[in-house]
Amino acid sequence: MKKVAIVMGSDSDLPVVESAIKTLRDYGVPFEAHVYSAHRTPEAARNFAVGAREAGFGAIIAAAGKAAHLAGALAANTTLPVIGIPIKSSTLDGLDALLATVQMPSGMPVATVAIDGAANAALLAIQILAVEDSALAEKLAASRAAMTEAVIRKDAALQEKLAAN
Amino acid sequence: MKKVAIVMGSDSDLPVVESAIKTLRDYGVPFEAHVYSAHRTPEAARNFAVGAREAGFGAIIAAAGKAAHLAGALAANTTLPVIGIPIKSSTLDGLDALLATVQMPSGMPVATVAIDGAANAALLAIQILAVEDSALAEKLAASRAAMTEAVIRKDAALQEKLAAN
Amino acid sequence: MKKVAIVMGSDSDLPVVESAIKTLRDYGVPFEAHVYSAHRTPEAARNFAVGAREAGFGAIIAAAGKAAHLAGALAANTTLPVIGIPIKSSTLDGLDALLATVQMPSGMPVATVAIDGAANAALLAIQILAVEDSALAEKLAASRAAMTEAVIRKDAALQEKLAAN
Amino acid sequence: MKKVAIVMGSDSDLPVVESAIKTLRDYGVPFEAHVYSAHRTPEAARNFAVGAREAGFGAIIAAAGKAAHLAGALAANTTLPVIGIPIKSSTLDGLDALLATVQMPSGMPVATVAIDGAANAALLAIQILAVEDSALAEKLAASRAAMTEAVIRKDAALQEKLAAN
Amino acid sequence: MKKVAIVMGSDSDLPVVESAIKTLRDYGVPFEAHVYSAHRTPEAARNFAVGAREAGFGAIIAAAGKAAHLAGALAANTTLPVIGIPIKSSTLDGLDALLATVQMPSGMPVATVAIDGAANAALLAIQILAVEDSALAEKLAASRAAMTEAVIRKDAALQEKLAAN
Amino acid sequence: MKKVAIVMGSDSDLPVVESAIKTLRDYGVPFEAHVYSAHRTPEAARNFAVGAREAGFGAIIAAAGKAAHLAGALAANTTLPVIGIPIKSSTLDGLDALLATVQMPSGMPVATVAIDGAANAALLAIQILAVEDSALAEKLAASRAAMTEAVIRKDAALQEKLAAN
Amino acid sequence: MKKVAIVMGSDSDLPVVESAIKTLRDYGVPFEAHVYSAHRTPEAARNFAVGAREAGFGAIIAAAGKAAHLAGALAANTTLPVIGIPIKSSTLDGLDALLATVQMPSGMPVATVAIDGAANAALLAIQILAVEDSALAEKLAASRAAMTEAVIRKDAALQEKLAAN
Amino acid sequence: MKKVAIVMGSDSDLPVVESAIKTLRDYGVPFEAHVYSAHRTPEAARNFAVGAREAGFGAIIAAAGKAAHLAGALAANTTLPVIGIPIKSSTLDGLDALLATVQMPSGMPVATVAIDGAANAALLAIQILAVEDSALAEKLAASRAAMTEAVIRKDAALQEKLAAN
Repeated sequence: MKKVAIVMGSDSDLPVVESAIKTLRDYGVPFEAHVYSAHRTPEAARNFAVGAREAGFGAIIAAAGKAAHLAGALAANTTLPVIGIPIKSSTLDGLDALLATVQMPSGMPVATVAIDGAANAALLAIQILAVEDSALAEKLAASRAAMTEAVIRKDAALQEKLAAN
Repeated sequence: MKKVAIVMGSDSDLPVVESAIKTLRDYGVPFEAHVYSAHRTPEAARNFAVGAREAGFGAIIAAAGKAAHLAGALAANTTLPVIGIPIKSSTLDGLDALLATVQMPSGMPVATVAIDGAANAALLAIQILAVEDSALAEKLAASRAAMTEAVIRKDAALQEKLAAN
Repeated sequence: MKKVAIVMGSDSDLPVVESAIKTLRDYGVPFEAHVYSAHRTPEAARNFAVGAREAGFGAIIAAAGKAAHLAGALAANTTLPVIGIPIKSSTLDGLDALLATVQMPSGMPVATVAIDGAANAALLAIQILAVEDSALAEKLAASRAAMTEAVIRKDAALQEKLAAN
Repeated sequence: MKKVAIVMGSDSDLPVVESAIKTLRDYGVPFEAHVYSAHRTPEAARNFAVGAREAGFGAIIAAAGKAAHLAGALAANTTLPVIGIPIKSSTLDGLDALLATVQMPSGMPVATVAIDGAANAALLAIQILAVEDSALAEKLAASRAAMTEAVIRKDAALQEKLAAN
Repeated sequence: MKKVAIVMGSDSDLPVVESAIKTLRDYGVPFEAHVYSAHRTPEAARNFAVGAREAGFGAIIAAAGKAAHLAGALAANTTLPVIGIPIKSSTLDGLDALLATVQMPSGMPVATVAIDGAANAALLAIQILAVEDSALAEKLAASRAAMTEAVIRKDAALQEKLAAN
Repeated sequence: MKKVAIVMGSDSDLPVVESAIKTLRDYGVPFEAHVYSAHRTPEAARNFAVGAREAGFGAIIAAAGKAAHLAGALAANTTLPVIGIPIKSSTLDGLDALLATVQMPSGMPVATVAIDGAANAALLAIQILAVEDSALAEKLAASRAAMTEAVIRKDAALQEKLAAN
Repeated sequence: MKKVAIVMGSDSDLPVVESAIKTLRDYGVPFEAHVYSAHRTPEAARNFAVGAREAGFGAIIAAAGKAAHLAGALAANTTLPVIGIPIKSSTLDGLDALLATVQMPSGMPVATVAIDGAANAALLAIQILAVEDSALAEKLAASRAAMTEAVIRKDAALQEKLAAN
Repeated sequence: MKKVAIVMGSDSDLPVVESAIKTLRDYGVPFEAHVYSAHRTPEAARNFAVGAREAGFGAIIAAAGKAAHLAGALAANTTLPVIGIPIKSSTLDGLDALLATVQMPSGMPVATVAIDGAANAALLAIQILAVEDSALAEKLAASRAAMTEAVIRKDAALQEKLAAN
């Protein structure tokens, strides 16, 4: 199976990114996680992106806040799908990171998920790998069914709670 | 090769969506394009999403404006990657469509591109198909090289223009 | 009397939604409350909306956050009035949910109230039922008069407080 | 049948409001339309709202731009459902009118539709009247079916167009 | 001397408004403070505004949050200067109240100060009374000079602090 | 009678400011208008503000766009009421000028009107002068009554138009 | 004298950038202008930045729109001052480019000017060169004096115009 | 070596500004820090700016919140480079200060850094001084290399942490 890369611009992004790591582990999808900064280690970020396809990666997840350039900087150096997680920082509630991640110029897409949406970034990477991997697709379908069940149970619990009042 | 689906919420979105169609044609990627509305034809949208993997699609692009629910409504009914294009409409400059597309809840990612970013949506779909298709990956790399060349030529043209003044 | 439905996208919305439940109880208006997700249980949401008029509902309240599609998804499957409560989540202060709820396309209105405005959503549902129910209309008028009285008492209390300083 | 009132804050709002008038006429719903300003004719606006239920109205639509107080000013003087249309003016793309209409305090709901969403405001009023009027509910259902048909025809037209290229 | 009126839409605004009260007391300017709601006690608000000039007021300060209509509702019923304080509430950081207060239509100005800017609202009222009251103008000038002195002392304190490190 | 000053940061603001000039002329209020820039002629702006009360002015209107500092710069040098008109420029729809004008720090109020709201700025200045000038107050009341009449005539015209269809 | 570099992400930015070129020519400051894209020619951009100090540049101006990464990408590869011009594109009025340019992480400043503020970017570069170049500083002072004169002449022209009416 | 000036509008800005002071000390760059308010001590601010070049300063850093005029007010009185730090205050998350600082009119640039970006403001000042000071430029390069090393160490630590799980 192809691997998924998770790149974060700073280790302070790890608390948000951990739900991506957990999701990939839950699905048994191989991954690597790295701290590479678009601005502090541009060469490391570039080199990683340039070699990612060759190294067996199928998708790259990039998490960054503020003027979040990381996803775009990786996308500029690979034709693998790059998934961007805008990270909320101390001001502007993540709007800066969202716009800096999603508003990419023509020719350089970044697949952007919700602000702090790390679990969804991992799921999107898994969906990408599952396009040609029917076993993985079945896991996604099973998880979807479990999500549905969980909501149905929550509705049932609400009915009990309302009836009790 | 897997096909790409383009779904637009209204045929008024076609002028924006056409650059996605053109991009897919340029790459020789098979596709279908449909007008399905999350609100006016919810069953058609749902049925298309439910059957899309079986029907040979590898990715679904969804374009919609305002309270843009289309990408999310498709994503709720398939585990294929769904790519959302927020369409700018007559007020709020596309911010409404961007937020309604990207801020998806946990478990249901939508790979969001820039407002009116239809060409990038198509490129992202091609990148997804190219994860397991090295011929397509080479086309992407060649196109990237051509983009680089074009910028280099534009810089050269600027140097001539500046020298002439 | 027609019933009011309250649908929330997640049971995490219940703390906000509870003031809608309380308001309906205060007015003695029959209601049901459910957890149905536009994305995790789209069929349950759809089926509820399709059958709601037949089942004796007169209005549907839908509460959801982020890319809040629930109200629109219900509105697409019924011609009953659908009232949307945008829920504030961890980023963007509810602006995403507001725009995703209110900016509906032509043909599919959602009656949107303030961010986290659950009590007002219930009042709006009661106003709708009261159009043809004069007893309920009188209760609304009495409550309005009580609100007026409460403000007048608060002004009197302020006068005392200012005089005491 | 109860009547619908359309109140606009200025006759300059008429070009937007006309689609509400057309919708009500299409459904054969009786209506009155007025120019009453929350600020320039506060007494006329107040008196209209105070007497509206008695005068046979079942819902009031209010259209206003900028610091759009009209819907709220009417809502303060009636317990009929009040529907607000935020009108886009020369700056801020309608965001000012949207927030001034939708963010009503507890106790005073305004059922807000999209910026410049006059047709939807009329549809919402018709939905409210249709709660107890099955003939009107059937008209809404028929119109919904016609909308669905129109989208299906547009999709068919798109298929022809794509096949022709 | 003319009096200043402070009107707040809810007694929950009092913690913000208190700095206006304190400022007026510091200047010895007579004032009244009231809780009148544009929506819950529209008649009381209207009657106060209609009679305010006759009652000896020279300016009216209005504080309100969310869809803040209070200042505009008062301005519609008097030609005295009305000063609006947008109050920050639980969502949107006061932007809703700011736009609902400042974006008044032509013919109905509201003199808007900063979000939660109650002290400045009081100072503006005092400046208005001081146009024809040279004693009050001198107090304003003296206070300004004191503010200047305070900043100069803070700069001196900073110099000491820096020198000590 | 005290005079009103109109200061604009650039003569490019004149098309917006002209409605303030017209309003002051309509009321027969003496005024001066000047082009003083907070940044290009800071001394002229400062000197004007410092001497304004002595020179017989009762209020100063300041119009500026973008990082609109003019109103604040004048307010820092006078204790006369300063009225700010945020001017919409080529980007950001006037939001920059609005925030730069209204969000003044404690101690330095600027009475801010709507974006491009020059007529209201003039009216506010007249209201300020009218606090101690009953003849002017009567003119304001008469104008208010004429506004009311105009709306009533527009409503009558709308009734005729609707009846004719 | 050190040279100034102007880098634009696309030749479509040239119409905005031209006022920077004109300003540098007016001051007789040597410059180069280039089209280098952070995403399409990342190596060219990187190499230019890495060698810029050695090549005799004293400041680098970078103009880019949307998810404007160019200034940051250059700043990551040089310790010369980098000046960012956010370019307004077809949506969001330049807010995306502003936030993507200015919200840089700690350690990597970008000196950001106003949206489309190319002339100011050039002036800032000249101010930087003038820190150690008193002749250039004198030119800046002379230009400032000329600006002041121009405003004074415009005020005089306004006085004539007002007197003539 | 030229000195750097740090000017803050209020001593309440000191907690943010301290990282600028620390950065300048770390680099051994001489500096002065002052509390000067654009509005409360306009003369002190003006005089400082007018005399700053003569007094041996090479750059001025200005920190202010809300309607942040300080940087612009200094820029209007010097042709030295002025660097603006927008300070986040109790509402609007610093967006007001950002726009009031960055959107300067043509002819008066302010080099704006991120909201609360005091360390970057100091670095930018050092970069400006380093244009003609190769020893300082080498310190900047060394610091950059140390930053790169720190990120590489953090990546290594992450690898250990991941391997341990």
